[in-house]
Amino acid sequence: MPRHCTARNTLSLQTPRRLALLPALMLGAAGLANAADLSAADAERYAQGTYREYFEVLSLPNDAIAPEDIRKNADWLEQAFRKRGFTTKQLANNGKPMLFAELPNPDAARKTVLFYMHMDGQPVIPTQWAQKSPWTPVLKHKTAQGNWEEIDSAQLFKGPLDPEWRVFGRASADDKGPIMMMLAAIDALKATGGQPAVNVKVILDSEEEKGSPSISKIMQTNRDLLRCDAIVIHDGPMHATNLPTLIFGNRGAADAKLTVYGGKVPLHSGHYGNYAPNPAQRLASLLATMKNDDGRVTIPGYYDHVKISEADRKVMAAVPDDEAALTKRLGIAHADKVGANYQEAMQYPSLNVRGMAAAAVGDKVANIVPDKAVAELDLRTTPDSSAAYLGKLIEQHIVRQGYHLVKTTPTDEERSRYDKLASFSYQSEGADAAGSPIDSAVGKWAYQSLTDTFGTAPAPVRIRMMGGTVPTAEIVGVLQVPFAIIPLVNADNNQHAANENLRMGNYVSGVRTVYSLLTHPL
Amino acid sequence: MPRHCTARNTLSLQTPRRLALLPALMLGAAGLANAADLSAADAERYAQGTYREYFEVLSLPNDAIAPEDIRKNADWLEQAFRKRGFTTKQLANNGKPMLFAELPNPDAARKTVLFYMHMDGQPVIPTQWAQKSPWTPVLKHKTAQGNWEEIDSAQLFKGPLDPEWRVFGRASADDKGPIMMMLAAIDALKATGGQPAVNVKVILDSEEEKGSPSISKIMQTNRDLLRCDAIVIHDGPMHATNLPTLIFGNRGAADAKLTVYGGKVPLHSGHYGNYAPNPAQRLASLLATMKNDDGRVTIPGYYDHVKISEADRKVMAAVPDDEAALTKRLGIAHADKVGANYQEAMQYPSLNVRGMAAAAVGDKVANIVPDKAVAELDLRTTPDSSAAYLGKLIEQHIVRQGYHLVKTTPTDEERSRYDKLASFSYQSEGADAAGSPIDSAVGKWAYQSLTDTFGTAPAPVRIRMMGGTVPTAEIVGVLQVPFAIIPLVNADNNQHAANENLRMGNYVSGVRTVYSLLTHPL
Repeated sequence: MPRHCTARNTLSLQTPRRLALLPALMLGAAGLANAADLSAADAERYAQGTYREYFEVLSLPNDAIAPEDIRKNADWLEQAFRKRGFTTKQLANNGKPMLFAELPNPDAARKTVLFYMHMDGQPVIPTQWAQKSPWTPVLKHKTAQGNWEEIDSAQLFKGPLDPEWRVFGRASADDKGPIMMMLAAIDALKATGGQPAVNVKVILDSEEEKGSPSISKIMQTNRDLLRCDAIVIHDGPMHATNLPTLIFGNRGAADAKLTVYGGKVPLHSGHYGNYAPNPAQRLASLLATMKNDDGRVTIPGYYDHVKISEADRKVMAAVPDDEAALTKRLGIAHADKVGANYQEAMQYPSLNVRGMAAAAVGDKVANIVPDKAVAELDLRTTPDSSAAYLGKLIEQHIVRQGYHLVKTTPTDEERSRYDKLASFSYQSEGADAAGSPIDSAVGKWAYQSLTDTFGTAPAPVRIRMMGGTVPTAEIVGVLQVPFAIIPLVNADNNQHAANENLRMGNYVSGVRTVYSLLTHPL
Repeated sequence: MPRHCTARNTLSLQTPRRLALLPALMLGAAGLANAADLSAADAERYAQGTYREYFEVLSLPNDAIAPEDIRKNADWLEQAFRKRGFTTKQLANNGKPMLFAELPNPDAARKTVLFYMHMDGQPVIPTQWAQKSPWTPVLKHKTAQGNWEEIDSAQLFKGPLDPEWRVFGRASADDKGPIMMMLAAIDALKATGGQPAVNVKVILDSEEEKGSPSISKIMQTNRDLLRCDAIVIHDGPMHATNLPTLIFGNRGAADAKLTVYGGKVPLHSGHYGNYAPNPAQRLASLLATMKNDDGRVTIPGYYDHVKISEADRKVMAAVPDDEAALTKRLGIAHADKVGANYQEAMQYPSLNVRGMAAAAVGDKVANIVPDKAVAELDLRTTPDSSAAYLGKLIEQHIVRQGYHLVKTTPTDEERSRYDKLASFSYQSEGADAAGSPIDSAVGKWAYQSLTDTFGTAPAPVRIRMMGGTVPTAEIVGVLQVPFAIIPLVNADNNQHAANENLRMGNYVSGVRTVYSLLTHPL
């Protein structure tokens, strides 16, 4: 804490205009003086200084399918960091370089934080976009009728800002927006002449939207360069309330495929209905043994590794999820009863039938007994329940239901020998679960930073583990340091879809957030 | 019985060459003299006299999609019956006339049998046929390697016949072969100068392969013309053993569609797996409540109307089904345990999942919670368990499982109100079940005729109810007389597929069968 205060005081003393805010800020979180925090007005000013660069970088196509495009992004970003005093290095990666940047003269007395963001974006289908090109960013405001209407972007460059304005373009939110917020935060820091309270390293992934297949190797190869005490990931959307958000983990993704076999070929349902066992019926009965009416997995052991402390339960219960609105939006009367609330449900591994098929439905339906029935499953894993663990449990369960498992289509001999035949395979989708304790040093530091800047009423949202899968495990796996995901963009940003956008109020709050992290000692 | 014997004696006395067979035949079924029956050699001779006509009629395309083709078939067949002394009448049917034919001078002391066959055939895909054209019949023999090889059809016309030869061509077995067998049997009868023991009426359907949509109307319109005491249907394949076969009914066809609803749209399985109820999982659980592991329907009442007498059970147990071979051919270790044997299983209504789908499997699979899951069912009905009865039972069962049934995609209000939402519809496929007692007068007459001709070791196969659906109900529904289906063609005739064929030994035995029916008084 002394170092914490020192760092902030150092900064605040060097920014006279911020001193005026001291009395109010001193009533902030934990009763500490937060003089180092950037005011909304200042953040808006520094943000504004970067909007032309923001438009410029959004004009660079960045689908990682095209290495030449990635190189242009890496070059542009390298210059942007260099002109702010960073030392930089492009990290070779099969023609799609990643960018490393570091503030010079690290202080050995300070902890080092590695900020992870990514320069690449999702593929685009230009015809789906309500603008000239996904690579020509535009400014839009919402009309009285609730439609997004393009307005002159000069208004943005000139100000004043309407925080509800949005910039539309691929990667506007995911993830070039956060990169620009960091650059603006650095500008703010430079303008005050201050030194950050942590040593700052940055890595910009070039293949995140392809599942970060190379980040782990890059981390290995550049282990010394990237050495740090903590990793902060600025990616993904904030909580739907747009409150400051901290995420301490995410589930991993695995998939599995279950095929139940019937006769050798589809059979006439008149001649063989009631005689040839129906694999669709059998698949249904088998799946029915795996989950109960509450949606809870009934395979023994499936939830055994889930451990949630009372403290964690309190943190999760405090997340301001509007479940009534959520179930209404999803179109369901009640959620499955896996957890006491949405956040708790996400702490459990899932077993989800993501696809199912036997013969045909609709126009092509025929009066047959199908020859096989397939269920495609996806299993969301948790740090304690891996794909291997869950897959094996399911496999053992299937065998206990009387099935003989085959690798491929059964042979005649297998068909005559075993009454119940199925194949089952499972694999990690390459993105494992990741988790970092809420009360780790990083967790406390990040929470303190956000409450110092944004207050505690309402408090920042802390997500113990998000349900979806992002490549956190790949990012943090090599360095094995605690981490926090600190998303900065609005939840309704159309991430991965057409008309991706960033709410400009989030740009400003993001600058404040990064500034806060930079100026709070870990 | 006296009339029975009289008829046969009348005939046999007029065919001296058959007298030589008397002693052997007197050891036949029921110890009665069977002198009236046509010997295999005679049958072969009369059959041979019709082979050129058989080739001619097989050269006439007969897909009922083309009315002009049907008219050519009707005209050709009308001439064929007329030249054998029948009075004929084309029955108007939207440009696709059916043919009625009757032997003149019916005897009021005799019962009248209406023989039903059909002139139309299945559509063809010529490229799938191993011959010049499906409409150019060819003779083939089986090579030592087990392949069917074309041979000169002059061998057929000239004789002697190899009973294993087959004629390939559309409708060779289904159903022009049986029509020709009847014509040959009439020729045999004429040659002996005999009168049949029953009054003979014939109706040739022109749209059987389209599901006989018009036969019922034609029966209504021509009720007086078609009046009879019994209906014999010569259609479909004989038992796989190729033993003389009698069928006393068939199951009907109904279908049903069950859709279970989840959220309004497919949902991200990371963010909502464990939270949004999965409709595929729920469909599976629902289907699992409908049938047990033995394949028996567990919906209360589903089998309540199935009544099988001990006598029927004996008849069914006597059917020489080779179930070991059957299960091997189907590729299953064990059959469902609905009946004690294959025949018994077919006496029960079925509930078959003929298709099932939720989201996608394979290449298009995605990590989502599907928004709905569909099961397409087909229900084979029995005379006592109609589509309406079975459908209602299933519907009530679904409601008992807690589902609120909707007609179409649920509204927002329904979604928020009901936890479990599904739609369920069912309908007859227009072909109802039909059944005629095995021990009806027709049943006894047909069985006696076949045993007189073919003996009792082995006995003819009696099928109480076949599993598949044929339009028997439509054929017999209007006239409401007992019936028997007496198939004449080999089971492996590729009916409905490419390379349809008739085993020529079956042509000959078919002539004997029809001759036997014609000469046995009902």
